[in-house]
Amino acid sequence: MKWLNIPAKAFNQEAEQQALAHQGQLTKPPGSLGQLEHIATQLAGLQGTLKPSLDNVMIRVFAADHGVVDEGVSAFPQVVTGEMVKNFAAEGAAITVIASSLSANFGVINLGTVNELPILPKVQDQRIAAGTQNFCQQEAMTEAQLSAALSAGQEVVVDAIAHNIQLFIGGEMGIGNTTSASALACAILSQPASALVGRGTGVDDEGIQRKQSAVTRAIELHGFNLKEVEPLKVLQCLGGFEIAGLVGAYIACAQAGITILVDGFISSVAALVAVKINPSIRPWLFFAHQSAEAGHVLVLESMEAEVLLSLNMRLGEASGAALTVPLMQMACQLHSNMATFESAGVSEA
Amino acid sequence: MKWLNIPAKAFNQEAEQQALAHQGQLTKPPGSLGQLEHIATQLAGLQGTLKPSLDNVMIRVFAADHGVVDEGVSAFPQVVTGEMVKNFAAEGAAITVIASSLSANFGVINLGTVNELPILPKVQDQRIAAGTQNFCQQEAMTEAQLSAALSAGQEVVVDAIAHNIQLFIGGEMGIGNTTSASALACAILSQPASALVGRGTGVDDEGIQRKQSAVTRAIELHGFNLKEVEPLKVLQCLGGFEIAGLVGAYIACAQAGITILVDGFISSVAALVAVKINPSIRPWLFFAHQSAEAGHVLVLESMEAEVLLSLNMRLGEASGAALTVPLMQMACQLHSNMATFESAGVSEA
Repeated sequence: MKWLNIPAKAFNQEAEQQALAHQGQLTKPPGSLGQLEHIATQLAGLQGTLKPSLDNVMIRVFAADHGVVDEGVSAFPQVVTGEMVKNFAAEGAAITVIASSLSANFGVINLGTVNELPILPKVQDQRIAAGTQNFCQQEAMTEAQLSAALSAGQEVVVDAIAHNIQLFIGGEMGIGNTTSASALACAILSQPASALVGRGTGVDDEGIQRKQSAVTRAIELHGFNLKEVEPLKVLQCLGGFEIAGLVGAYIACAQAGITILVDGFISSVAALVAVKINPSIRPWLFFAHQSAEAGHVLVLESMEAEVLLSLNMRLGEASGAALTVPLMQMACQLHSNMATFESAGVSEA
Repeated sequence: MKWLNIPAKAFNQEAEQQALAHQGQLTKPPGSLGQLEHIATQLAGLQGTLKPSLDNVMIRVFAADHGVVDEGVSAFPQVVTGEMVKNFAAEGAAITVIASSLSANFGVINLGTVNELPILPKVQDQRIAAGTQNFCQQEAMTEAQLSAALSAGQEVVVDAIAHNIQLFIGGEMGIGNTTSASALACAILSQPASALVGRGTGVDDEGIQRKQSAVTRAIELHGFNLKEVEPLKVLQCLGGFEIAGLVGAYIACAQAGITILVDGFISSVAALVAVKINPSIRPWLFFAHQSAEAGHVLVLESMEAEVLLSLNMRLGEASGAALTVPLMQMACQLHSNMATFESAGVSEA
């Protein structure tokens, strides 16, 4: 797993400076396009060009099951993970409707549903195991399984490079995975379960109690109630295959110079783990939206992440990130196609 | 101006109820699409159909100048209003870049730039006067001018009906018009100038003082420092031709059954005036974004308006609303094209 520590592609500050100067010449009051201006100038630095673009978008949803569902932490039965993978293949899910509208390069990577699935369009079968183990009783995965999940994420980027992808969006599907993500965030941010456990897909008050209890017991069991923890060990003990797949994909994208748009709570926790493993990737991460999941704010704050949307969504699947793509594309188009004060003959302030 | 009081087209509660039931059957945790679910079900009620759509979008930017610029209230010279109209015609402005990307039906209506402009593509010359009068000294416009500006807004809707428009976006361009909008909101909401005057296109602290002073003196001069004011009279005394054009367009759209997406601070003040004149239009208004302009929060709160974006924008021109269109279109597509639990064979919670 040494590849995880290779530095991210360097940020081009000269291109960013040129883009900032260009923004100041466009026919609008300086700063009046708000966050869209930062998107354009940050992308200029990432892509190393005055006028960046985001025409080629890739979406990969990682799917896997979680042993911790034995603790009664989800409102949905575990079989739904595999059923939703089939729904992705049939283009009936939220993310597939949005991906189709965006003409994005879409695919699903099955890293470990409890049941084997038939051959399905758009779905790569890379099952590592029939879900993780229950992390309230033992490590969620072995070191070899962790390595396989991270590598599956890395492999996605080979595909992304081949398709000239400019924006990578990762998504996740896994019944029980808000509990895994909460546990990861608690361990890494040294927070109590109450600060990071939320309703997920919609558990009731008793369900939340069960989630908090599971997270608290797991943190205790694995000895993560300390100030300093080792992020890869935390990921192995408390993670899911799909979360580790996201971590691997994020790190490999940044190494390859591909901009990343992070989805909601679970994806943001994967981004947090990735940044803890390899801090050099941070400039490559955009954060799409503030989800309704209670712990998301803390996770975003820990990375000083500014989101673009806040629509009270809590679906996962990469859906919030995919919804944000038109905004980022428009930021590029405005930056590239607006007239300057000089070219349009408009007087300045 | 009696047409202003004709009730808006009725909201179809049966279609909304059917849409709400349909939302509950889609393959996602109930409520997990957040505000997108409300957009779809509200549009179902407005369009009177289970599966609404927003394929045909019209954007009309109303432009006019303001006598109140004599009080030193803007960072930009008055000539910029006409220069920006030319920039719209040449497709160099932010709104034209976005409108083109959306394939929206775009046009500009010049209701009163200080200078006459040449014939320009996409621009209708309907100049009422060479800008309004300085409302710190007299009424901004005559009753006949107010009526003409409102009618210009109403006429847009004739065009919208002819083009089967499903979503109308109004925009404004007019140096000095945040001062006019602030004055209107102060009068209607009985607030002091300090609560509703902001930096507009970017005035400094002294500029803000001049804006607050101008608004305070105008409210006093026209006797609007009372609890109850007559909205049409307020519009005549403190408004701009482009703001009155928006008011007329909003009311006529709602009467014709065309959904409205309101842009930022100035457009929201126009919406507030329109709702005060004819409260039946309120269900037809969606509010696109929370702008960076300080007084916008109060104006939105007064209508219990929930926005979709908050990107710190403060450009006007309809730009924030236009940026929001893909989100609303995606809300419709998700509502119409996602599989149900039954059709996809996915287990429920």
